[in-house]
Formats: sequence, C-alpha cells, structure tokens
Amino acid sequence: MSESTTSQSTRIVLASRPEGAPTADNFRVETAALPEVGDGQILLRVVYLSLDPYMRGRMSTAKSYAAHVELGDVMVGGTVGQVVESRCQGLEPGDYVLAGAGWQSHAVVDGSVVRALDPQAAPLSTALGVLGMPGFTAYSGLLKIGKPKEGETVVVAAATGPVGSAVGQIAKVRGARAVGIAGGPEKCRALLDEFGFDVALDHRDPQFADALAEAVPDGIDVYFENVGGAVQEAVWPLLNTYARIPVCGLVAQYNGVDLDRKDRLPGLFGSILTKSLTIRGFIQTEFVKEMYGDFLREVSAWVRDGRIKYREDIVDGLENAPEAFIGMLEGKNFGKMLVRVAPE
Amino acid sequence: MSESTTSQSTRIVLASRPEGAPTADNFRVETAALPEVGDGQILLRVVYLSLDPYMRGRMSTAKSYAAHVELGDVMVGGTVGQVVESRCQGLEPGDYVLAGAGWQSHAVVDGSVVRALDPQAAPLSTALGVLGMPGFTAYSGLLKIGKPKEGETVVVAAATGPVGSAVGQIAKVRGARAVGIAGGPEKCRALLDEFGFDVALDHRDPQFADALAEAVPDGIDVYFENVGGAVQEAVWPLLNTYARIPVCGLVAQYNGVDLDRKDRLPGLFGSILTKSLTIRGFIQTEFVKEMYGDFLREVSAWVRDGRIKYREDIVDGLENAPEAFIGMLEGKNFGKMLVRVAPE
Repeated sequence: MSESTTSQSTRIVLASRPEGAPTADNFRVETAALPEVGDGQILLRVVYLSLDPYMRGRMSTAKSYAAHVELGDVMVGGTVGQVVESRCQGLEPGDYVLAGAGWQSHAVVDGSVVRALDPQAAPLSTALGVLGMPGFTAYSGLLKIGKPKEGETVVVAAATGPVGSAVGQIAKVRGARAVGIAGGPEKCRALLDEFGFDVALDHRDPQFADALAEAVPDGIDVYFENVGGAVQEAVWPLLNTYARIPVCGLVAQYNGVDLDRKDRLPGLFGSILTKSLTIRGFIQTEFVKEMYGDFLREVSAWVRDGRIKYREDIVDGLENAPEAFIGMLEGKNFGKMLVRVAPE
Repeated sequence: MSESTTSQSTRIVLASRPEGAPTADNFRVETAALPEVGDGQILLRVVYLSLDPYMRGRMSTAKSYAAHVELGDVMVGGTVGQVVESRCQGLEPGDYVLAGAGWQSHAVVDGSVVRALDPQAAPLSTALGVLGMPGFTAYSGLLKIGKPKEGETVVVAAATGPVGSAVGQIAKVRGARAVGIAGGPEKCRALLDEFGFDVALDHRDPQFADALAEAVPDGIDVYFENVGGAVQEAVWPLLNTYARIPVCGLVAQYNGVDLDRKDRLPGLFGSILTKSLTIRGFIQTEFVKEMYGDFLREVSAWVRDGRIKYREDIVDGLENAPEAFIGMLEGKNFGKMLVRVAPE
C-alpha cells in the first residue's frame, strides 16, 4: 500500500458485486487525488472507520432503503476523523468530528454534515458504537417499537454486537428480562458477566431451540430482530399475544437464503393474526429528530455510571477492512467492529 | 326440522372437523331441551344469526385467538334476539338484545353479557354488521393501525363485505383514496356506485396484478388485510415506505394453502426492513374499551347521513346456515351474511 499524503487519499472501492458472501475480490485499494477544499468544506484525516452489516446491502443493486454503491466508488461508512484543513466556520484544524467519509484515509466533506466530538466527554470510537448509530438503533427501536414493560421478556441475537448488547442492557434499565443469543461460549460468558443479561444462549448449540423455549417460561414479549434465519425461526412459536418485533437487520439472510424450503409466509401471517403481533421494520434515521437528543443524554449517562457497557473489536489498518468486514458477516467479531485507520 | 318451542332449542352443532373447505357433513341439526332460566339470566328467541369468516377457525383445533368449538357443541356466533323470559333486572320480555347465542333458535344466557338494542335507532340487523363487530373491526383497525392520512391510498379486498365496505368508506371520510377489490363485475359495480370507492378491481381478472399496479400510481399506504392469498401477493410490491398493514383476517388461507411454493418468508422480511413496514394483527376486542363508544357515535351518524352505506345478504331459516356459511367462505355472499332465524 502506498503512503497517503494530505493531497491524496488511500481508499477502498467496490471492485465487483458479491454473489452470496462477499470475498476479498469484491474490493480494491486505490490511491486518488483529493479535491480542493471548497467554501464550507473541511479536509479530514480518518481515524476510525465503522464496519456495519448494512454495508452488505449497499454492495448489491437489489432495492434497499439506501442507494447502492456504484462499481469503482468508495465503500460507504461512518467515520471519526480529525480536521486537517478547514474552510468551514466553527471547525478548526485539530477538531474531531463524526462524518460519513467512507472507507478511506482522507476525505473532503461539507462541514454542515459533520458533528463535532468532544474527546474528553467519551472515547472517540464510541461515536460509532454505543453512542452512535448502532446504539441509537437499539435505543430507538427498542423504546419506540419494542416498548418493553417491567417484567416482560426481551430476546435479542448478535447480542455481544453493538446493537444487541445495547438492546439487552436498555431492556434491563427498563426492568425487563433480557435473553441474549450469541455464537460460542466466550461470547455467551460475556453476555452474563460483562453485559448483565439474565440468560445467554449459544445459537450453535444443536439444542438451541429447546434451550430458548426453556429460557422463556413466560414467553417472549419483544423480539428485537437483527439477524433473521434460524434464530427467528426458534423465536416464532414462543411469542406472546401482543408481542412486538422491531426489525432492523437480517444479517443471516443478506448473503442468500435456502431456496428449497416450503413456503412459511402463510404460517407467519397466521401467527400475526392469532397472536395480534406487531412487526415493524425501521431504520434509525426515522427517529433521529424525535429521539436523538434523549438518546445521547440518557445513554451517555448510563455509560458513565456503568449501567451500559460496550465492547469494541478494533482492527488496525484500512487495508484490513475487507477481511474484517467479511468476518463480521460471519459473526467472527466480538463487539463493535472498527478499523483504526490512523492513530488518534 | 322439528318445530321448536320455548322449552326447546333447535340448534346446529359441529358434527366433525373439516379438512380443507367445510362441507354440509361437518354440521348437524339437533333439538335440545333448554335449561331453566336462572337468576340474572334471560331466555332469548334468536332473530338474526351472523355468519363470519372467523367461525372457520373455531371449527379446527389449530391454535387460534379463541377456543375451538368442541365436537357436538353448538356453533358459536353473534345473534340478535328478543327476550322471551327474564330473571335479569333491566331486561323485559319483548326487549331486543345483541348476544352471542350461536347457531340456535333459542338460548338461555346471562343478562350481563348482552347489550340492549333500540329497534327505532337503527335496523336490528345492523348490530351484527355495520354497527356491530364487522363495522368495529373496520373502524378500529383502520383508524388505530392503518391511520390513513388525507390523500393516501388505502387498499382493501372482500370490499363489498361488511368489513371491507366499511374500511373503504371510512377511508373516504378521512380524505384517503379507496381502492376496493371484489369478485366479479356485479360486486365491482357496487363498489363504485353504491359504496363510493375510487377504484374497483376484480380479483378474478387474469390481469389483476397489473390492474392493481396501474390503479395505485402513488403506491399503497394502507393495505387492510382481510383475505391473504393472491391479493396479498399483488399488493406486496406496491407498498410504500412506512406502509401500514392491519391484519384482521386471512380467509383465502383458512381452508388450506399451496404447500408446494418456495419459501416467501425471507422476501417478506426483506420488504419489512427495506420499506419500514408495519404489520399488525388484531382482533377488534382489543380496542373495545378504548374506541367502541366513538365507533357507535361516529358510524351511526355516518350511516344516518348516508356517508356510509351497507349491504346485507340475508338467508331465511336456521337450517340453511351451513350452506350459507360454506358459500360465504367462497365469496358467494354479497354483503353482510345473516341468517333470519325467526321474524322480528
């Protein structure tokens, strides 16, 4: 990899579209000249890049809630960066900001679309995790759609991830019972010891469905859906009347599904009807205006007082982003997946 | 059929459970002695019996939102009846009441669970239709879950039925565009001429899916789901972001589904996620406490001033109830299906 200067950016572009699971071939590292810093713009050096499951959707042309990445374009992504040069009032060189600079070392962006970060208030990386988009996805989806009541049972998968761990811990703050699902004994231990879930279940356990049924003697009131697949299937028969299912991700089916299965759609609608279920897809952006202020205030306080813990899985070097991303879709990460593109 | 006296009831019991579509063999006519009228009870002679799709569910032992009918028991159902004998304060012989007496000519019921009807205020039969359970299903599901806004597009099937026709007309009252789906040209004409829908579509038209797409140039904001099946499938790709789908019935799949289809569940969840859909099953009883007073007041007024029309399909004679019920599940009725068990 060539070294980048502030007139150039090292970047990872979409080289080809994946069929099924993405591979290293779908990505290409390039060096590109940076544009001039225009009026109202800033030049950033990227410090942290966030890797998130939604990026898989952007690699395909299938209809999604956001435009796909064009072949040859820089992969999209949230970043924390430091201002190198500014032609935007209120932002000075040295300031840290949250920006959507994508998978690259440097970027020129409009100052109006970044958010200034105070490195004293919280670790910079948390702006991409527990105090950023994943944390807000958990907070808004759980409180606005899931609406857990005291004593109710909340189930979430990918539970050591940034969304799942926040879902379980916010459910606990609200007095609900939190059942977390993760892959492997190490993650399950963290659910109990680190994140304070009431129950931890390993979805790799061949008896997983039975274990889940045993773990929810009063049924399931909220299933926070961020994976789909086999976990969803085990959850379904255990849902209570009036259960709520916020749907923010389906990582288990992003890379393809079993096409030989019998049609489960009529059965699903039968359950929706007989159990008066609520299923609600959402993207956190929908709730930003209404809830983001409350989120930052409440969750920042809970992080400070230790009621909400978070875990990060940091890989060094932009060139390692593709491999880390591919691994994340397979559940190999342990905590919020970040790339340290450059030192703080 | 033997003539019933007030010491006896002619009744239709569940003789066997249907496999697929019910047949006449699943029902049996019997005469049974009536119990004594106890303290707080009344003896009713049934005037109208309501036939509704939900009854198909009660004939099976599959898990549903209500207990199934046991073999040999009287089929359940809403009725309008007249008090013959009363040991309940506030109810006199000659009074008309709404009661769940089931498929029989006479019944002894608790006075506490009936609702007195004023035959001067509205035709007695409307208490089983537009001003009863079907009307309230439409009103509560549409307003509480569908939440149509002015200018939005609302789609409903079985649209000449008691639920569908009320859905379309209440949507119009709220300033939305109403697209009705029904079977055959006669019903489609009634949707336009009688019920004031903006568009009427025949689901038997081989080009139905294309016709629906053409009829909703701005997409679908509310799909009031009361049938499932092919109509649901045509609606799905046309739903807008943030579309709402109240689910109150799935008559197209009550008698069985095509088991050879590919699994559509992952695709459904994909749509839920990418379009931020809300799917919500409900039974009208959930909203009775909160909304029934408003419903009676508002819809009674709309019926009086002609903004809401209704149509009834009345069959004479309790012994004809099974055939009428079987036909209704096939869409042969035209309006709210009622059995006139005895003259008013």
